[in-house]
Amino acid sequence: MDAHDDDPKLRRAPVVPLKNLTRGNVSVARVLDAWYVAAASKDLGAEPLAVRIHDIPLALFRGEGGRVGAVLDRCPHRNVPLSTGRVVQGTLECGYHGWRFGTDGACRCVPGRVADTDARARRTPAFATREQDGFIWVWTQPDAEPSEEPYRFAMLGRPGYDHVRQTVTAEGTLHAAAENALDVPHTAFLHRGLFRDESRGITLTAVVRRSGDRVEAEYLGEPRPPGIVARLLSPSGGTVTHFDRFVLPCVAEVEYRIGTENHLLVATALTPVSDFVTQMHAVVSFKLRVPHAAVKAALKPLAMRIFQQDAVMLRAQTDTVRRFGGEQFVSTEIDVLGRHIWRLLRGAERGEPRSTAVVEEHVQLVV
Amino acid sequence: MDAHDDDPKLRRAPVVPLKNLTRGNVSVARVLDAWYVAAASKDLGAEPLAVRIHDIPLALFRGEGGRVGAVLDRCPHRNVPLSTGRVVQGTLECGYHGWRFGTDGACRCVPGRVADTDARARRTPAFATREQDGFIWVWTQPDAEPSEEPYRFAMLGRPGYDHVRQTVTAEGTLHAAAENALDVPHTAFLHRGLFRDESRGITLTAVVRRSGDRVEAEYLGEPRPPGIVARLLSPSGGTVTHFDRFVLPCVAEVEYRIGTENHLLVATALTPVSDFVTQMHAVVSFKLRVPHAAVKAALKPLAMRIFQQDAVMLRAQTDTVRRFGGEQFVSTEIDVLGRHIWRLLRGAERGEPRSTAVVEEHVQLVV
Amino acid sequence: MDAHDDDPKLRRAPVVPLKNLTRGNVSVARVLDAWYVAAASKDLGAEPLAVRIHDIPLALFRGEGGRVGAVLDRCPHRNVPLSTGRVVQGTLECGYHGWRFGTDGACRCVPGRVADTDARARRTPAFATREQDGFIWVWTQPDAEPSEEPYRFAMLGRPGYDHVRQTVTAEGTLHAAAENALDVPHTAFLHRGLFRDESRGITLTAVVRRSGDRVEAEYLGEPRPPGIVARLLSPSGGTVTHFDRFVLPCVAEVEYRIGTENHLLVATALTPVSDFVTQMHAVVSFKLRVPHAAVKAALKPLAMRIFQQDAVMLRAQTDTVRRFGGEQFVSTEIDVLGRHIWRLLRGAERGEPRSTAVVEEHVQLVV
Repeated sequence: MDAHDDDPKLRRAPVVPLKNLTRGNVSVARVLDAWYVAAASKDLGAEPLAVRIHDIPLALFRGEGGRVGAVLDRCPHRNVPLSTGRVVQGTLECGYHGWRFGTDGACRCVPGRVADTDARARRTPAFATREQDGFIWVWTQPDAEPSEEPYRFAMLGRPGYDHVRQTVTAEGTLHAAAENALDVPHTAFLHRGLFRDESRGITLTAVVRRSGDRVEAEYLGEPRPPGIVARLLSPSGGTVTHFDRFVLPCVAEVEYRIGTENHLLVATALTPVSDFVTQMHAVVSFKLRVPHAAVKAALKPLAMRIFQQDAVMLRAQTDTVRRFGGEQFVSTEIDVLGRHIWRLLRGAERGEPRSTAVVEEHVQLVV
Repeated sequence: MDAHDDDPKLRRAPVVPLKNLTRGNVSVARVLDAWYVAAASKDLGAEPLAVRIHDIPLALFRGEGGRVGAVLDRCPHRNVPLSTGRVVQGTLECGYHGWRFGTDGACRCVPGRVADTDARARRTPAFATREQDGFIWVWTQPDAEPSEEPYRFAMLGRPGYDHVRQTVTAEGTLHAAAENALDVPHTAFLHRGLFRDESRGITLTAVVRRSGDRVEAEYLGEPRPPGIVARLLSPSGGTVTHFDRFVLPCVAEVEYRIGTENHLLVATALTPVSDFVTQMHAVVSFKLRVPHAAVKAALKPLAMRIFQQDAVMLRAQTDTVRRFGGEQFVSTEIDVLGRHIWRLLRGAERGEPRSTAVVEEHVQLVV
Repeated sequence: MDAHDDDPKLRRAPVVPLKNLTRGNVSVARVLDAWYVAAASKDLGAEPLAVRIHDIPLALFRGEGGRVGAVLDRCPHRNVPLSTGRVVQGTLECGYHGWRFGTDGACRCVPGRVADTDARARRTPAFATREQDGFIWVWTQPDAEPSEEPYRFAMLGRPGYDHVRQTVTAEGTLHAAAENALDVPHTAFLHRGLFRDESRGITLTAVVRRSGDRVEAEYLGEPRPPGIVARLLSPSGGTVTHFDRFVLPCVAEVEYRIGTENHLLVATALTPVSDFVTQMHAVVSFKLRVPHAAVKAALKPLAMRIFQQDAVMLRAQTDTVRRFGGEQFVSTEIDVLGRHIWRLLRGAERGEPRSTAVVEEHVQLVV
């Protein structure tokens, strides 16, 4: 597209020319003092890898001893992406003029200069990294010391558990993706037949607790749902313990226990690739009374089908929000977690101190 | 395309860096207090249908008794398009959480709530509709009572007449499409050989009459033109009566009578899908002294060929106007209707009262 | 893409949300009082040709006696591109209503008018042209008398020389393309193995001389390089004379003499199609002691391979600059010509008088 297609002189009025129907707010929080998953460990080999978080282009590479470097993906010399270069002797070499950078972002070499003593001053911003649980995490404030450690996938390595990993990308804000992942009412409509059927008229109580860095909803009185996911989990029925949980800035957990023998935890690290694109790195950990091999075989296609339905809806939501120039949401009490997640994200973006109090509320909803 | 492609900081100057050669005016009139054709009746069945008028996204659906509802295509809950949902019991059900809306825009149901007495307050704006002449008309001011009734295709149902319908879409403003549809001089060049040949040196007089909601040009002294359309109409020649007419806000009529036995009326309802996209719903009504079956067989391919030539030109015009950031038109007296149409559209956009006077002028042109 | 995708209300902050890492400057100089190559002569026949320079759309056509006309590619009547029309009796006829224009931009005819005495006043801006050396040059200030003549390809027609022509297009500013074309250090990395190998540790001195309309670097102490291009030029070795030269506003020359018998001049006229797209019209002129037929056979594929590597890098640079909203370059002394080229371009854009002094500096670099 040519730039002139958007000449502002051609815009005499909002795109949708209806007063009072548009608003400028969008639930985008740019929390930069935070860890996000940049890639799965297995995806970073000998070649550099280009990723984006909060629209910041990053070049990942393995430096000395395999240690992961994450630097701004822009050579300070002529602004080409460093990720299109190569890794040489533990440094990232730009493909244009051969400048080399360490994992600390310092330039180690400017080829062609007679004396090159001040090369290290020609830095590219570097970002702290951690490699754990099979993921590469990046702290998105450049040249900064992280004030905390990344989230841990708690069930990895626990005896009796198996795990399925899946990375998918949705066109929606991190807030929209997190709300979707932790929302109960939409499952009866968007995932009709797959997950939940239409209402059985059972009233549950959701106990919502928001504290410093998280909010969770515990669902009391939930019977084993009749969908095929539930039949897979517990053929004989049983009491259901169900938590939906958001942990700042980027983790959504859905946890089910059915009886004492079944435990399922879907932990998803949400990465804001850009304002309206969210990558989701999910680890499904389970210990179930059914054969794990069968669960593994069934889980991935089922999860992908659910995800595809969510992805279509998130994209449609994003398109509509963009078309109108902002969000105009109406909520009810059964939108249990969305506004709490937004409050946490907005506070974190503003750098507000985390509250030490626990806010608790009870909500009734019919499933 | 990523948003950064249009970072305004990269725009140091107008796209075309020539002073005095660009202007910001574009002949876009957003007349919202008006009826437009949203769809052909046959295109709205049991499923909802997404349309746009003046860039307003609308969801059309058939409610109780088949009555057409037109609501803003955005669920007030989480801003997804309602048109991707389904019709249930005469209501439009959102595909995300199952909220249901009537043709009046009121929410009838929020599934999952224990008590849902205030659901109706959670409205989506609704638009008045009419279904007549095989078309669905929508009044583009939401939640408003129309101040008049839609245009009628007058010849439908008249004895002895046959009709051909055609819907096409052009990339151009409604004004550009209307001017094109009612312009005589371009036919000798753009449609050379098809419609009119190059000039025969005959001087006509166009009597132009503009009154409250319309402007028409009556062409006096026009001989039967030599093109193949004309040969089809009247093999033996005859006096030609020819009117070109624009009726606010969106109808273009071209009317020919050749002798007493031939009558052709091309009535086109122009729908401004967005500022630069116009959909045209044409009804060609005719009573001719040649076999109607042969006319019908010949008319569609001929009309489509003419339209394709016009569509290419309208798109090229739109691209050029956008490239320069506005229109810079030079007119002569033989641009008979364009400026009158613009005056009518602009007055309607501003809500000016319609004049009761008739302005008449005489123009000579050579065909 | 719909216009609403770029609604500024959705942009709460810079795209890359990192303070101090973005700048608004971009090395775009719009030098309009200048000649640029609009097309190769062979590409303009009996049909009009649409080109763009500095984003100005131009219609080229051959008027009376084959003389090239260049007019703004917008009919003053209804703003459609004149280049989609046809050439009739030495005039350019618009395809919409048949208005005809001479090479001077004056309208010669408005078909359909009874009296058309004032047609010539309905002008489209016209641009001065020259046709020489197999190229059509256009002066990009409309309706203006050029203050100088276009650049000449000096070796064309010289006895003993052969020539290869090549036109390619890169996504980069004219400045980035010129710097790339005249830059030595990148050849060892971007064109590794093709052009130069990695450093042999030889220190050269570049004598840089900038005067009124040009800057050149003369490389002293350069041995015959070991790459295959050099082997082609001089199988027996020999002293190398090497100049890289930029001539305002748009010519890059790379000149090699090896011994007394070999001379190679790559002269490239750079045309700024738009701010970030540069078309390059190169003429490679050579007189070499190897069979010219073999050189011709080898030269084109080699040059295209080198160009493809440069084009990929220029595009990556442009994408990165756009993503960050501007350039943030760090230079060293071995970026020999880039900042001089920018100074010349910026001075020309501002209309500064050309300096009569010669600025000379010496730079050492290792190849």
